[in-house]
Amino acid sequence: MSTNQPLVGIIMGSDSDLNIMQGAAEILKEFGIAFELTVVSAHRTPLRMVAYATKASERGLKVIIAGAGGAAHLPGMVASITSLPVIGVPIKSSNSIDGWDSVLSILQMPNGIPVATVALNAAKNAGILAATIIGAFDETVGTKVKAYKNNLEAEVLKKVDKLKTEGWQNNFDN
Amino acid sequence: MSTNQPLVGIIMGSDSDLNIMQGAAEILKEFGIAFELTVVSAHRTPLRMVAYATKASERGLKVIIAGAGGAAHLPGMVASITSLPVIGVPIKSSNSIDGWDSVLSILQMPNGIPVATVALNAAKNAGILAATIIGAFDETVGTKVKAYKNNLEAEVLKKVDKLKTEGWQNNFDN
Amino acid sequence: MSTNQPLVGIIMGSDSDLNIMQGAAEILKEFGIAFELTVVSAHRTPLRMVAYATKASERGLKVIIAGAGGAAHLPGMVASITSLPVIGVPIKSSNSIDGWDSVLSILQMPNGIPVATVALNAAKNAGILAATIIGAFDETVGTKVKAYKNNLEAEVLKKVDKLKTEGWQNNFDN
Amino acid sequence: MSTNQPLVGIIMGSDSDLNIMQGAAEILKEFGIAFELTVVSAHRTPLRMVAYATKASERGLKVIIAGAGGAAHLPGMVASITSLPVIGVPIKSSNSIDGWDSVLSILQMPNGIPVATVALNAAKNAGILAATIIGAFDETVGTKVKAYKNNLEAEVLKKVDKLKTEGWQNNFDN
Amino acid sequence: MSTNQPLVGIIMGSDSDLNIMQGAAEILKEFGIAFELTVVSAHRTPLRMVAYATKASERGLKVIIAGAGGAAHLPGMVASITSLPVIGVPIKSSNSIDGWDSVLSILQMPNGIPVATVALNAAKNAGILAATIIGAFDETVGTKVKAYKNNLEAEVLKKVDKLKTEGWQNNFDN
Amino acid sequence: MSTNQPLVGIIMGSDSDLNIMQGAAEILKEFGIAFELTVVSAHRTPLRMVAYATKASERGLKVIIAGAGGAAHLPGMVASITSLPVIGVPIKSSNSIDGWDSVLSILQMPNGIPVATVALNAAKNAGILAATIIGAFDETVGTKVKAYKNNLEAEVLKKVDKLKTEGWQNNFDN
Amino acid sequence: MSTNQPLVGIIMGSDSDLNIMQGAAEILKEFGIAFELTVVSAHRTPLRMVAYATKASERGLKVIIAGAGGAAHLPGMVASITSLPVIGVPIKSSNSIDGWDSVLSILQMPNGIPVATVALNAAKNAGILAATIIGAFDETVGTKVKAYKNNLEAEVLKKVDKLKTEGWQNNFDN
Amino acid sequence: MSTNQPLVGIIMGSDSDLNIMQGAAEILKEFGIAFELTVVSAHRTPLRMVAYATKASERGLKVIIAGAGGAAHLPGMVASITSLPVIGVPIKSSNSIDGWDSVLSILQMPNGIPVATVALNAAKNAGILAATIIGAFDETVGTKVKAYKNNLEAEVLKKVDKLKTEGWQNNFDN
Repeated sequence: MSTNQPLVGIIMGSDSDLNIMQGAAEILKEFGIAFELTVVSAHRTPLRMVAYATKASERGLKVIIAGAGGAAHLPGMVASITSLPVIGVPIKSSNSIDGWDSVLSILQMPNGIPVATVALNAAKNAGILAATIIGAFDETVGTKVKAYKNNLEAEVLKKVDKLKTEGWQNNFDN
Repeated sequence: MSTNQPLVGIIMGSDSDLNIMQGAAEILKEFGIAFELTVVSAHRTPLRMVAYATKASERGLKVIIAGAGGAAHLPGMVASITSLPVIGVPIKSSNSIDGWDSVLSILQMPNGIPVATVALNAAKNAGILAATIIGAFDETVGTKVKAYKNNLEAEVLKKVDKLKTEGWQNNFDN
Repeated sequence: MSTNQPLVGIIMGSDSDLNIMQGAAEILKEFGIAFELTVVSAHRTPLRMVAYATKASERGLKVIIAGAGGAAHLPGMVASITSLPVIGVPIKSSNSIDGWDSVLSILQMPNGIPVATVALNAAKNAGILAATIIGAFDETVGTKVKAYKNNLEAEVLKKVDKLKTEGWQNNFDN
Repeated sequence: MSTNQPLVGIIMGSDSDLNIMQGAAEILKEFGIAFELTVVSAHRTPLRMVAYATKASERGLKVIIAGAGGAAHLPGMVASITSLPVIGVPIKSSNSIDGWDSVLSILQMPNGIPVATVALNAAKNAGILAATIIGAFDETVGTKVKAYKNNLEAEVLKKVDKLKTEGWQNNFDN
Repeated sequence: MSTNQPLVGIIMGSDSDLNIMQGAAEILKEFGIAFELTVVSAHRTPLRMVAYATKASERGLKVIIAGAGGAAHLPGMVASITSLPVIGVPIKSSNSIDGWDSVLSILQMPNGIPVATVALNAAKNAGILAATIIGAFDETVGTKVKAYKNNLEAEVLKKVDKLKTEGWQNNFDN
Repeated sequence: MSTNQPLVGIIMGSDSDLNIMQGAAEILKEFGIAFELTVVSAHRTPLRMVAYATKASERGLKVIIAGAGGAAHLPGMVASITSLPVIGVPIKSSNSIDGWDSVLSILQMPNGIPVATVALNAAKNAGILAATIIGAFDETVGTKVKAYKNNLEAEVLKKVDKLKTEGWQNNFDN
Repeated sequence: MSTNQPLVGIIMGSDSDLNIMQGAAEILKEFGIAFELTVVSAHRTPLRMVAYATKASERGLKVIIAGAGGAAHLPGMVASITSLPVIGVPIKSSNSIDGWDSVLSILQMPNGIPVATVALNAAKNAGILAATIIGAFDETVGTKVKAYKNNLEAEVLKKVDKLKTEGWQNNFDN
Repeated sequence: MSTNQPLVGIIMGSDSDLNIMQGAAEILKEFGIAFELTVVSAHRTPLRMVAYATKASERGLKVIIAGAGGAAHLPGMVASITSLPVIGVPIKSSNSIDGWDSVLSILQMPNGIPVATVALNAAKNAGILAATIIGAFDETVGTKVKAYKNNLEAEVLKKVDKLKTEGWQNNFDN
């Protein structure tokens, strides 16, 4: 695949969600996976949402990551139109009831229309999930995903050593 | 207004919601308010949903009642397109998490796109709410709403008397 | 209708709710819909509450917006007396249990007495809902509601362009 | 005090609550405390509710027990009018969201207007609480409350003995 | 009754609860009802708790107010021993799960042992509830409770006037 | 790809989950996607779980669907080892607390290790999600997914017609 | 240790909890660990509870398993008196709010007084936990615990084989 | 036992949990119980986790304390491998949903694999629970546990005296 063709579309209901959703963009950049990022609101731009979802597959996207908060309809509505896998990121927005509304209105989709839901505010994990999906079919990306997991392990082991050397009393402040 | 022109549109995501949503239809019939009832699914017929919401006002509807369960997107999506008031009925469907998903995904709409949410499974109340809305501008209906409330009171008072006469020990079985 | 006759009554249980409830007042002002705003407490001024609800319709009001927090009884009690539509705004007050008490004690009304509940703290949406109700019967207001929705869309599209031009990395700080 | 003068008023929003609320009546009968029992609905008979609460004290009542379910406003509204102690019984009615709505809309009263809330469906405990209140000022009742508590203990001890004699394998079926 | 004899015992599990529980003390002082206040921990001083509850009635107390947080056992355990009415104040302590643990472990008492539960952190309301209990049997206190309720109303009406005169735009800052 | 090589591995913690998890198997069969199905328990066969997850990718699997209930660790633990996308199905098992434990212990994975979570008991949706993932890279499957979605729409439209013809009163019994 | 000296005390608030708590007794019998089983109610026999907890250690018990439902105070109160480890079993009793009250009032103990809480209704797991505690210091029991775990694994592997041989379509009915 | 042989292993999923988990280390130090403390992540170092749990018993550990947040799998996975008692500390990490995810994914373990769960963030109580377990079999430690409990009582009694002497008005600031 050409590296310029975006494989992942990152969309969100409002630019106020950008400080959360950048997590997906940054990790995809790290994996070298081309992506696009824009604002698509199910509630304020319903026709743009229909258009985006309708054309996503033919434009060459393989995965859509959609973030939204409160009564979060964007991921589910996009999933109702596209045949691509849609990853939903529940966002704990300001008037959310502790995030429960965001989680439940993305997760609890009816039979026929799944959304691959990740943890509250976990845009980074949405990016990693997109990478595992692409990596299952693209060896270059698959190798990077394995390396990423190995690195997670290596970083923990470094901390294990540091803790052993310095003692637990010296590893934190408060 | 002609009594044949439907003023209220009752829609639901699935015909399995009909046993709940009939509550709205029956009470509107009792109030003599013309209505239509059909199935419109945000997730399985998104284009039909867009079309329905787009034309609702010009077709003469004054209020839309939308019932849905789980990740319930129908009321909010219709409200995002129409300029009519939308009443949302959260339905406790079979795999709902105790109804919380239905309630939160209808109630917690973002700024700009309200849905008038009623209690879990409260389709009858959705119908009464539609009647109060129409009754605020139509004296005939307004008078019926007042009569309905007075009757609620009268029925309780009858039970008060029955309880007084027969004693509380004789008013129930278990 | 004369523009001086208040069509919407905004009431709240305490003046400490005013910083939330002003959201309803401001949007109604924007829509050019005459309203009144006052404090009516179900618990501390029950007789004033009964009087307010009893006379609301004959005084020319078309919609009542009632905000309250905790064991929030004002919207439901007003709805039990008036035949007008009542919009309830659950307020997350200081000792509220994360807003759940406010939401449930407004939403879960019994058969016969609906309250049109909006999201937690969503006084602005209560104002918009009142406008959609009035706009369904008053063409001038109806046109403004449509314009408001179109504007919501236009604002998102402006942000889409800005994001396209400037890139997502430049659109936020943290 | 004359034993014929009711000291406790048991009220409920609907006669469908009678199968729960009879628990209060039965235990008061057991304690020999005179009571009255009737239906008073905050939502369907608001004026009757105001009248009942206004006259309760002058009619000689000492305690009011009010049961309600869903958006349960009866206990709190009565407490807002009377100066008597009000005991609230949250009832898990049919469309209640697992009883949370009933509990929170009775418990979470604002400053100035307490309701003495008991457990979900715990009408019997409401009756016992009324007895402890009366018993704190009336020695005859106070003695009965003590005897009741001693009896609770005695009944457990009997079961302890039975379990010892018969063995735990023989004390249940499934 | 002599005014020096404490009628209400205010107890709490830890002196860290004092900043909440002082609300009960202050309102009882305002009502002129003699009280005592001390620390009694169900978990750290179980024998002191048993002793306190055992002697409360014979020492002349009429009501016990017990505040506790988390797995809050103090109110229920005291209620299991004394024949006096026990008012429980759920406290939202630092590691409480949003106050749910405090509320449920005080409210959901088994048959036979009620606790009169008030709202989360509502020590002031616990004091008022104690006053309504005493006031039901002591006319001087009863009159004060009525005056207190009237004053609540008067204060709201003052705010209504202020809002009318000054306008809602001038009544708050943010 | 050969149609005999399983592309999807369906695993579950216990054979008692089979009546839920068969939903994934049946829909994959319908899509003509080869799969394997077996029992792998994170808690009772941890070493088998490690082995399964370690070899899944090299054995040719592209997606793993893991179902579990209660403290549901299987999906997350498998995701911690494999580089393949893992779809988690929260199961409402008998002693689950209304399914919340299953949902949260699968959804709320830490940074680095996402699980694509679907709704409670939604094994069928897990199968469809797997199909959308494979279909994004395999045109034959992609076409079937599109057809499936079109069929969902067609089925709703058939019900719309039936409802129109027969009337809503004739479409249900109770 | 003599096998006749009970090492584990199983107590519960009511004999109605016996059908759950027998799970602890049966598994301890299977492990050959001597135990006693009786009813001790924190609320109805507080003095018996104090006595039981005070003498438990000197009577030779090593672990106490306490089951209770609703506002479940037994495990925490026993833990406040004894120096032995106390395992708490939250029971979903009839009027429990979905078990949340039982769980939170056992789990959320304050600093200084831990209760080892197991899952809702998980009396069997309480017995196994007691066995792991004893087995950490008694090699015979420790060996049995290891064998038990190995057997759990073996049973799963048998089901794996059965599923392989018979196919998943033949392993369930509904 | 030699005091140098660690009897308790304290492990946590991330060094960011150290500021909570130090509570276990500090109290064990106070009890003079040898322990080790390190980072073991179920999700990022699954093989290290398996190795740690497999060898824990033969290395001489008697109890394992495992802390984790969110979808917290560490305590349960370790418990699935070792035959030692495992104490789980649910940690309210930054993106946890109010701690519910941490609590439920540790507490709700399936039959056969218990985890002794303590309160949210209650690492100190985990340490005390470990001490009661060791103290049940080691008289020196058992005596220290009793002394610790007595001291808890003494400290409360000191505060009782201070409150008596100084008055409740002088015991707090805000």
